[in-house]
This record gives sequence, C-alpha cells and structure tokens, in this order.
Amino acid sequence: MSEKVFYGKGVRKIKKEDLELYESIVDLDKSIWNSNVLDYKTQKLIAIAISATNSEASSLLKQISKSKKELNISRDEMMDVLKVVLLTSGMISYNKSLDIINKLYD
Amino acid sequence: MSEKVFYGKGVRKIKKEDLELYESIVDLDKSIWNSNVLDYKTQKLIAIAISATNSEASSLLKQISKSKKELNISRDEMMDVLKVVLLTSGMISYNKSLDIINKLYD
Amino acid sequence: MSEKVFYGKGVRKIKKEDLELYESIVDLDKSIWNSNVLDYKTQKLIAIAISATNSEASSLLKQISKSKKELNISRDEMMDVLKVVLLTSGMISYNKSLDIINKLYD
Amino acid sequence: MSEKVFYGKGVRKIKKEDLELYESIVDLDKSIWNSNVLDYKTQKLIAIAISATNSEASSLLKQISKSKKELNISRDEMMDVLKVVLLTSGMISYNKSLDIINKLYD
Amino acid sequence: MSEKVFYGKGVRKIKKEDLELYESIVDLDKSIWNSNVLDYKTQKLIAIAISATNSEASSLLKQISKSKKELNISRDEMMDVLKVVLLTSGMISYNKSLDIINKLYD
Amino acid sequence: MSEKVFYGKGVRKIKKEDLELYESIVDLDKSIWNSNVLDYKTQKLIAIAISATNSEASSLLKQISKSKKELNISRDEMMDVLKVVLLTSGMISYNKSLDIINKLYD
Repeated sequence: MSEKVFYGKGVRKIKKEDLELYESIVDLDKSIWNSNVLDYKTQKLIAIAISATNSEASSLLKQISKSKKELNISRDEMMDVLKVVLLTSGMISYNKSLDIINKLYD
Repeated sequence: MSEKVFYGKGVRKIKKEDLELYESIVDLDKSIWNSNVLDYKTQKLIAIAISATNSEASSLLKQISKSKKELNISRDEMMDVLKVVLLTSGMISYNKSLDIINKLYD
Repeated sequence: MSEKVFYGKGVRKIKKEDLELYESIVDLDKSIWNSNVLDYKTQKLIAIAISATNSEASSLLKQISKSKKELNISRDEMMDVLKVVLLTSGMISYNKSLDIINKLYD
Repeated sequence: MSEKVFYGKGVRKIKKEDLELYESIVDLDKSIWNSNVLDYKTQKLIAIAISATNSEASSLLKQISKSKKELNISRDEMMDVLKVVLLTSGMISYNKSLDIINKLYD
Repeated sequence: MSEKVFYGKGVRKIKKEDLELYESIVDLDKSIWNSNVLDYKTQKLIAIAISATNSEASSLLKQISKSKKELNISRDEMMDVLKVVLLTSGMISYNKSLDIINKLYD
Repeated sequence: MSEKVFYGKGVRKIKKEDLELYESIVDLDKSIWNSNVLDYKTQKLIAIAISATNSEASSLLKQISKSKKELNISRDEMMDVLKVVLLTSGMISYNKSLDIINKLYD
C-alpha cells in the first residue's frame, strides 16, 4: 500500500485534540498529490528538492528515506535532483544533501 | 534552438573580465542539465519549485516566463508544481508564485 | 464584516479550475484562525512577524496594510512586533519592515 | 525571578573579552522586552513563531522549553502559534516544530 | 566624514518615539564596527555578502551603493565577494547580486 | 599543503559516477578562490559569515574547524565576523554560531 502523505506521526497525534485542523491538513495533503498533469513521482522529487534547500539534515534524511522506499527512487535520480539544488542554491545545500544520499545509497 | 542555461545576461558580461570564472559557470551549467536519468523538463520544474520558495518575485517571473516559452510548460503543470510549494513551504511562497502564474497565463 | 483569510485574490481565481484544492485551502485557513486559546489579533501579529522575516517588501506591505484596517492595529503595536524581529532576525529584516511601517503610519 | 533575556550562555562568556559588545547586547535585549503596548508573553510567542520558521530543531527546543517554564505557556497556546506557522510557512517548519511540542508536552 | 552605520533613515525616525530602543541600536551598531582585529572594510564586505544571500534586490542595491561610495570598493573587490556567494549559495543569489553590481559599475 | 576547497568528502565520491559534474565542481571551486584582489583569508571569512546565517550547526562546525586549522584564524577574528552576523541577521544566527566558536576555542 502506498501512503501518499507528507506529514509525519506528529500530525496524527493532533487528531484527538483538534479534529478540524487534522482533517484540513489531511484534505490539503490529498488535494496536493491528486494532480492530473504531473505524476506523483515528479511531485515527490520536487518536494525533495525544496526540502534539500530548506530543511535540516535530520528531516531531509527522513523524507528521502521514505520516498526512496515508497517510489523506488534510484541514486541516479536523486543525484539529478541534487544537481539542480547545486546550481540554484550552492554548495551549502548540496554538501548537506549529498551526505544524506551517500548514507542512504552506499 | 533550445538554450539550456540558468544564468542571465549578467554572467555573459563577465566573460571578458574573468574568463576562468565564466567558463567554470558555463561548464557547471552544462553538466547540471546533461542528466541521463531525469529529463530536462523535470529538472526545469524542480528549478522553478526551488526558486518559488527562495527567489524574489521579479527573478521568479523572469525564470518562469523563460521556461514557459522554452519548454511549452502548461498552466496546469505550473499549478502542480505550486501545489508542492504550498504544502512544503506555505502561503507566503504560494501567494507570491500564484500571482506570477496568473500574470503569465491569463 | 471581518474577513479572516490569509490568501490573496489569486487563490479565489483557482476556484474554477481546481475546486478540491480551493476548498482545502479555505478549510485550512478557517481552522487556523478558529483558535480557542489565543485571540485572532495575537495570531495576526504572529503572522506579520513571520512575514517580516520571510516575505518580500511588496507582499509584506499588502499584509500589514490589510491587518491594520481589519483589526485597527496601532503603530505602537506594530513597533513592538518589529522589536522582536530585530532581536531574533537582525537589521536586514528590521530595516525592510520599518520602512513599510513608516509608509503606512506617517 | 523572571529572566527576560533572549541570548544564551554564550553571550555571558563574552563579557570578559568584549565588554562593549556585551553591554550593547544586554541593552538591546532590555529595550526589546520593555514594551508598553504588547505584553511580554505575546512578544515571546512571536519570538517562538519566528524561531519555528528560521531556527534549527535543537535551538528551537531550547527556546520553547525555556519559555514554557518561564511563562507557563500551555500546549494549546503553543499549538495556536504553530497553526500560524503551518499556514504561512508550510509543513517543513510545522513538522519540525510539532515534534518539539510533542516532546515537551507529552 | 565617514558614517559607519548599518541602519537606514527609518531608524533615525524612531529616536523621538522610543529613545531607549534607538540608543541601543546605535550602541550595538557602534560596537559591531569598532573591531580591533579585522578592519572596517573587511567587515563591510562580509555584510555585503550576507545581504547578497538574504536581502531583496532593492535593499541590497542601497547597501552596495552606499558602501561603494563610503569605502571606494572596486568592481573587482565586489566580484570577489560575489564569487563566494556563488559557490556557497548558488545562482539564484548570484544572478540577483550580479545584476546590481553591473548596474552600479557600468 | 594548503587545500583550498569548499566541498566535502561527498563530492570526491562522485568522481567515479559522474566525472563531468565532478570536474566542473572542482573547476568552479578553483576559479572562486583564485581571486586577484581580495586575499584568500578574507574570502574564507566571507564564506564563514554566509554559512553562519544559512547553515546548520553541524556543517558550520565542520567548516569553521577546517578554516581555523588551515588559515590559523584567531578567536578574535572569528568574533569580528560574528559581530556582523549579529547586526545583519540577529540573535538566532548569532547564538548558534557563538556556541560553535566557544566549543572550538575554549
């Protein structure tokens, strides 16, 4: 079963305390990935690229690890995403992301 | 003729004053887009997404406008990119980018 | 009539082309401002502070201008928000935001 | 005794080596929290929101933990701050901050 | 007379409404540039580099223009600063900054 | 032997799988530090300042530690760099960087 969600376990915990917020996050998440032009994998690669320039190493690691399993993304595909990160956002983001790819795909 | 470059006219101006730097930018740019797994259009969509979360409106406008012409990217494809921007990076980046898409695709 | 929404006119335009996305943005927006502990004004001041450190001048101007009218936020209240921006995020964000406050409250 | 300071222990260490800098940081810090319109707690919530979109997890954890004790900020208040983070800045910042709140308020 | 300040005219306006804040900004600013190891010009180049990766084009233009006059910084020195911006932070920040340098030094 | 490179071990690993990319990174890196106006140390201090406002603590620690050894940068010089970080980018970046300096120079 593929589970197309971006949010982590933390969001599931708020189901009890704030059902309205929980449901609006779930609905937003659904409407994001239910695209009719770009396929799901392309959108996931885009999410990884955005995270590579804006996330901390630990959450980027979690996200890439999850996407790798769910969609069977190859190291070469990841490296092509990182190339765009390098060109647009420089070595600070690239070094951080490359270390993660090297850990996950040895 | 498709011109697969990310840098603007400013970079071309430095050819005379710093040939070594100019050539290393051109070479880096080439090696980024010469991917063998992801196609060029997917990488361009990734570059747009990164810019949508990190660029100013004026340079984002230039980049999207250029990519739209070069690759014939449809409004629906752009909107699918922006969806991922919305989910990962929120309404500040989304509002800014949506205004640009609405200007370029009326 | 107070209109408690964060999104701009751009979002309203997507109602026709992507009703599911539109509705999930509207629902999320509603569930954000329907808080039961902090009052609406406090949350708006928080939104302004986040924008002051992450938005461009033009969209920050729009947001502050709108909030000023909707909630009658005084110059002194705005200046107290900016103080926190100065301490946490420095003069780059502070200078940009201060210019906007000085324009809107002369 | 309430200790209304934003800086950490690191700043105290520089008292000996650069008294002028130390005193100007202390004075700036004082003038920030000595507001006459917004109360101290509101300003602290604003500081937490800014940090949630701009800090690393580890320093955000320290800041929230300190504010929680000093001002007795409830989980519900924190969740209301995070809602604004979610709307303005998206799931990357929200997931990171939510994990911290879930750790500190189990 | 060289005026070693980072803040703009906006800060001078707050002298009347919040003297304590105004004085602490002025004092902080003084203690920053009164270094005893690095010279003032090096620190200014550092400030320009930070702004190039974090400021909007309009405020970056103002800052570079001011520094250029005050310290007689040459185009070659500016280009050397931008090189470090390119390597660490990528083409988005570099393109934006290069356009400004090209405007100010034609 | 001084090793004037910005990239980490991760980049060396891609030499085998993508020689073209590897060489263009190496060439770019060379052309950055081969400046003829600013000296290498000044450029390194600029790189540290940019990283202090944009990097995570762990990669900033690595970079500062490396620069300290390579160029014999003193604690006072580092503190002068951090002063500019404080003024332009605020206490969030300053606290994070100061902790690192305090660890490396006890």
